[in-house]
Order: sequence, then C-alpha cells, then structure tokens
Amino acid sequence: MADKGLLLVISGFSGAGKGTAVRRLMELHDEYALSISATTRQPRQGEEDGREYFFKTAEQFEDMIRQGELIEYAQYVGNYYGTPKKYVLSQMEAGKNVILEIEIQGALNIRKMFPEAVLIFIMPPDAKELENRLRQRGTESDSVIRARLSRAAQESEFAAQYDYIVVNDTVDNCVASIQHIAESEKQRAPRRLDAIMQIREELKVYSEGEN
Amino acid sequence: MADKGLLLVISGFSGAGKGTAVRRLMELHDEYALSISATTRQPRQGEEDGREYFFKTAEQFEDMIRQGELIEYAQYVGNYYGTPKKYVLSQMEAGKNVILEIEIQGALNIRKMFPEAVLIFIMPPDAKELENRLRQRGTESDSVIRARLSRAAQESEFAAQYDYIVVNDTVDNCVASIQHIAESEKQRAPRRLDAIMQIREELKVYSEGEN
Repeated sequence: MADKGLLLVISGFSGAGKGTAVRRLMELHDEYALSISATTRQPRQGEEDGREYFFKTAEQFEDMIRQGELIEYAQYVGNYYGTPKKYVLSQMEAGKNVILEIEIQGALNIRKMFPEAVLIFIMPPDAKELENRLRQRGTESDSVIRARLSRAAQESEFAAQYDYIVVNDTVDNCVASIQHIAESEKQRAPRRLDAIMQIREELKVYSEGEN
Repeated sequence: MADKGLLLVISGFSGAGKGTAVRRLMELHDEYALSISATTRQPRQGEEDGREYFFKTAEQFEDMIRQGELIEYAQYVGNYYGTPKKYVLSQMEAGKNVILEIEIQGALNIRKMFPEAVLIFIMPPDAKELENRLRQRGTESDSVIRARLSRAAQESEFAAQYDYIVVNDTVDNCVASIQHIAESEKQRAPRRLDAIMQIREELKVYSEGEN
C-alpha cells in the first residue's frame, strides 16, 4: 500500500540552478516523477519536445485550456506555460512525489488548487553568483540577462510566500535539501492520520477494563 | 553568525524508544543540545542526577516554580516534570537545536509559549511492538506495563496535535528522520526572511533603470 505522493512545486530565479538540481534528484531517486510543462515559448538549443517541455502553438495551448487539461497555466514574458493534469494526478496516486518546476505565478496558482502542495523556492547564495551563472550559460544576450536579473528582483518579493527557501550553494546540498524536505513533509501529522488511527485502535484493548 | 537554533520537542509513548533515539542523535551530531528536565519522580536503576534528570524533592520543585526558573511544568503519574529555562534559551541563542524530551501535557504547554517550537511525536510501528519493548526493558511490573499501555491509548488522542509523527521502526531511521526534520525546518520560509531580504537588497541594483 503506497502512501500517496507529494506535490512538490519548485521555483526560483532563472539561473538559480533549479533545473540542474531537479535533473540530479530524478537521476538519484526513483520515488520522484517530473511533471513536464506545456509552453508556447521557443525551444532553447538542445531542448527536446516532451523532455524539457511540450512545445505548443498558442492555438494548441488555448485548446488545452478550453478542454480543462491543465491544472494551472500562466503567462510569463509573453508566453503561455501550463501543467498538464492527468500525469500529475496519476503519479501522485501511484505514490510518486511529483515535481513541478514552474515559475512563481503558476506556483501560487497551484497552491490555491492544492493547498497541500509543498512550495520550495531555490535561491542562489547571492546576486553576484546569480549573474555569474546566467552569463556562464552563454545562451542569452546581455539584455536578456539584465532582464532576467531585473525579473529576479521582482520575483524575490514572492519568495516569502513559499513553504521553504533552499539556498543552492552546491547541487549536492540542494538535492539533499529537497529530498529531506520531501521525507519530512511525509511525516507531517496531517499526512499520518491513518497511522495514528491505526495504533489508537490497536491500543484500545489495553485501556478496556481500566478507568 | 550562527542562525538561532530550533526548539525540538520530542514526545511519545513510554516504550516508543524516544530516549534511545535522542541519545543516538546527541552522539552523532554536535549541533544538538539536550535539555535536562527536573522531576520529582524516583530515579530508575542506572539513572544519574544531572544526566537523565535533575531529581528534586517536591519542595525544591515548587521553589523553582515560584522563582520562575521553569519554561513549563506539568504533573504526570503523580510527579512533577519541568523544563529549566536558562539552558534552553542560551543554547538556542548559540545556534544549537535544543531537544526537550517531554510528555504530552508539557509539550502542548511549550507550544503555547513558543509557537515556533517543532513538536515531534515518536510512535512504535504498532501496539504489539510497544508492549514487547516495555516488557524487554524489564524494570517494571506487569501492572505498571499495563498502566503504561493504557496511558498510551489515552495519549494517542493527542498525537495529531504534533507537527510530525515519526514511526520508530529502527533507531537509525528514527534518528535520520529527526535530523532531516530539523534541517528542513531551518529552511522554512519564516526562518529565512533574513536571506530573502538580503538578496532582495542585492538585486535592487539590477532593477533600477528598468520599468
């Protein structure tokens, strides 16, 4: 009897390293399942349809909205991003912790629909390190990098609304933190009511005849 | 600059193995400090004053109450139990996670005074295992064991009020769970507001001139 999996929503500034951390987590632990988002943005170099994202036209995406196939969707820098519903629910039911790596607007939308979702915000150690990582990626122009840093400044306003703030100093530490958060969240009392009820039943036999 | 330590309140049925788990945790990790309770109950075989408890007379204990030297105190099976204040606060300030191993009434009292305390309830895998552990201890009569099991039945009503339920199947798993809970709790957003504010300040420079 597998316990139901968690819904782990992971956000962070562009360049905070959340993509790398999530990939490593998936490699190391098979109790996680990665939800792949749909988007209308253009693929970056090396990205494949169905691996990083399901790449959709605006018409296709709007059709998914109308058919109720998305848990949430949001617009971000002029493109649609959304979370297909079916995969997330079936994997959670099978006991997998489903990871959604989505941006802030989407994450806060998820919380409204799934109050039990666990929201994790990944931060770089400091702003300078964030800038370095964006520049090292080498895929974006200077103006795009500046726009992302400016966006990070705005996004930082929302970090306090997440459940956890994980500082990504090294990938290994970041992955361990996410994993420990997931383990601990599974032990939160509201998720253990079954176990409590079970031992209460078992213990009843000992209290009969007393009092 | 050490972050302030957590206050970890650990309870569980008599015989759930919390004492063993806490001792192991203390041996393995020096970021924890164990708060030693004061009590008026008689020492068990092998217990030493100042190690398991500060053993006090009822008169001494009531004097500590009057002097305001206790964070909380409660009566349990006809004896006083209480938590001396000074040690707890100074260790937390020094960055240690302070562990209070106390019974339920005391734990729920602590929560009223320290809403940020993390309450962990240790459970045996099942009632039969609890009975086995109590019998193996070999220090108590059959009637005391039955009284403890009956008490466990009553106490199980309160488990859901704790933050976490940890099933003590093996000592190693139990210790790892407590440690991961402590790590994760330190990353909860309300405890990371300083880090959020710091990066917000640093990022401001990038958003100036935009918008």
